[in-house]
Amino acid sequence: MVLVVDVGNSRIKAAVFEESMLLEHFVFTKIELQKNIDFILKKFKKVSDLVVSSVGDVEKQSFLAYEKVVDVFFISHKDTFPFQNKYSTPHTLGLDRMVLAAGAVLQFPNQNRLVIDAGTCITYDFIDDQNNYLGGAIAPGLRLRYESLHNYTAKLPLLSLEAPKNLIGNSTSESIHSGIVNGLVYEIDGFIADYRSRYLNFIIILTGGDTDFLAKRLKNTIFANSNFLLESLNQTFQYKIKK
Amino acid sequence: MVLVVDVGNSRIKAAVFEESMLLEHFVFTKIELQKNIDFILKKFKKVSDLVVSSVGDVEKQSFLAYEKVVDVFFISHKDTFPFQNKYSTPHTLGLDRMVLAAGAVLQFPNQNRLVIDAGTCITYDFIDDQNNYLGGAIAPGLRLRYESLHNYTAKLPLLSLEAPKNLIGNSTSESIHSGIVNGLVYEIDGFIADYRSRYLNFIIILTGGDTDFLAKRLKNTIFANSNFLLESLNQTFQYKIKK
Repeated sequence: MVLVVDVGNSRIKAAVFEESMLLEHFVFTKIELQKNIDFILKKFKKVSDLVVSSVGDVEKQSFLAYEKVVDVFFISHKDTFPFQNKYSTPHTLGLDRMVLAAGAVLQFPNQNRLVIDAGTCITYDFIDDQNNYLGGAIAPGLRLRYESLHNYTAKLPLLSLEAPKNLIGNSTSESIHSGIVNGLVYEIDGFIADYRSRYLNFIIILTGGDTDFLAKRLKNTIFANSNFLLESLNQTFQYKIKK
Repeated sequence: MVLVVDVGNSRIKAAVFEESMLLEHFVFTKIELQKNIDFILKKFKKVSDLVVSSVGDVEKQSFLAYEKVVDVFFISHKDTFPFQNKYSTPHTLGLDRMVLAAGAVLQFPNQNRLVIDAGTCITYDFIDDQNNYLGGAIAPGLRLRYESLHNYTAKLPLLSLEAPKNLIGNSTSESIHSGIVNGLVYEIDGFIADYRSRYLNFIIILTGGDTDFLAKRLKNTIFANSNFLLESLNQTFQYKIKK
């Protein structure tokens, strides 16, 4: 069994895999890291490998402590990935985006793929049918937009994510929900339309914490899987050890 | 002559009008307020009225000091505006949005109008051909998106606004420019398309600090005028004193 851990910008996601089967997944904050890993390792005693990918600011040390009980692997830029990285600044490409691209290549071979990860940030990543990773885009995610409206203006309230009732918001709250949610949906559909004008066929994979909220609002047919990053992390690890 | 002053979330904009003609306009920060108002009043000695609209956190007191030399008016929610306010929470409707709506009604009578103000926030406001103000949307503006990506993630840099070279960013910087600039352009075009599915005809007015940068990137035909808020402030004042 493998325990994969993704340290994101705001949360830590973890999952236990038996080969390619996800047995259980977990979401927790950074301060609850040790407590949760302890709990998972106690519950799944057959875990032999702990695989970590981090774009956040959690110390490596927090994981090295587990070397006494399991083998610990840190996914890094130096690993071999199943794609050619065409990024001009490969050392600044987020590990999460590399893992997503690897998962897209391994789960959907021989086709163009657009991966959209809707978390703290929205990232877009395109890997063509020749397994060239071409790059993509980064924009603020839903909650980040709500927070920034409140934190950078004198009078706007901090709201929680909520579906707008209408295109035209008829109150300050409804205006904010429309601006952020409708705005992001137009944005994602716009990106997809622009990709479609350049590539005839590609599969669209949507993942991240806001997958379910966004999936039903998009015009396009997508493969929605909120656990795609965790699955990709497991696959990247399997690919790494087979090499 | 009238000096109008708009206190926004990040900057103060001011302009001197001779009737409906804008003579000169100014942009400055809050700490430079007094210095700039002094300078303007010294340069334009015929200014008799100082008109202030504020959504920012500058004290009224800063302007009352000028009552010795000019008449000072604060635009407020209690003023009469040339539209019926259909907002369900009229007291929370930003004064800047009310002034924009007034300007749209006075400059473009007898038609549907969509006003898009691209500043710290992007605001959308719709006023129909019966002069009903219906509401709209609020989303983070371009610079706010750049700042939030940097401030809420562990590893993304703080970049300045720059036109993306491509849909697919092939570096972290290019990914951010694509995500933010292309994303916002898709968003605005998406909002306009959605309004068009409900209203056959309407004029689109684009204003705010990012007017010129955005105008040439939008699919739609728009009336682009970065001074529209200042002009609207002058017109709102003329409307107020005629009442």
